[in-house]
Amino acid sequence: MKEFPGTPGTLTALVLRVSQFVFAVGSIASMATTDSFFNFTAFCYLIASMGLQVIWSSGLAFLDAYALLRKKVIHNPILVSLFVVGDWVTATLSLAAASASAGITVLYFSDLGRCSSGEECQQYQMSVALAYMSWVSIAISSLLMLWLLAAS
Amino acid sequence: MKEFPGTPGTLTALVLRVSQFVFAVGSIASMATTDSFFNFTAFCYLIASMGLQVIWSSGLAFLDAYALLRKKVIHNPILVSLFVVGDWVTATLSLAAASASAGITVLYFSDLGRCSSGEECQQYQMSVALAYMSWVSIAISSLLMLWLLAAS
Repeated sequence: MKEFPGTPGTLTALVLRVSQFVFAVGSIASMATTDSFFNFTAFCYLIASMGLQVIWSSGLAFLDAYALLRKKVIHNPILVSLFVVGDWVTATLSLAAASASAGITVLYFSDLGRCSSGEECQQYQMSVALAYMSWVSIAISSLLMLWLLAAS
Repeated sequence: MKEFPGTPGTLTALVLRVSQFVFAVGSIASMATTDSFFNFTAFCYLIASMGLQVIWSSGLAFLDAYALLRKKVIHNPILVSLFVVGDWVTATLSLAAASASAGITVLYFSDLGRCSSGEECQQYQMSVALAYMSWVSIAISSLLMLWLLAAS
């Protein structure tokens, strides 16, 4: 398997994983500190999906950090296949959750022309924005992983 | 470039393109025949995104049919790169649009516990379901195209 920036055990991969983790944690924190998120199925789904993202990204970040410190190359085809499947599943769930929440946020902000919960509305928006940023970084990881698997 | 089921100019690719087209047309028809879809940004976005899907999939379906009839192989790397980018853009937009509309549909059906528009609610649900089916077939096409490009 070829070695290029973003493959497991490189600094780029570690940076991508850490940014996924940070954005997902920020999204959960922003959403979970509102008082009424549990009234909306989409917002609960966003928290669940970002929770999965946190678990997945932190695990792979530790693996990348270990490989970087020990100067090991993790290019086992079976491991990479597992990373590809995990990345695609979490990326799809993140995009779906972020979009579902964005749909509701836009409905309350623009379509109904009011957001009666005051400061909570900014928190919903912030949570959705962070979820999208988390999705962008997991999407880059997924594409690089699939490319690595296909090119091997 | 290798030839496997789903690559441009094969019967599998044509079937995938036709199913994307049919599901997207069904989704638009189901949504556009409701009286109040224009009150919801997400539903308008669903129609726009499915419209793009219809244009893209019908174009590639004609290309596949032409290649099948003339027994030509369309494996030009530049063309395939173009297909990959187009497929990924439409697939991402379709998933985002379907999820945003699904978020609002679930909000009205489950969270608020009522759907006052009667028959229209079934049409919204049907439209979202068809959009997801269109996304599944474009996602398969995208993965096959990226694999073809990376494996070449």
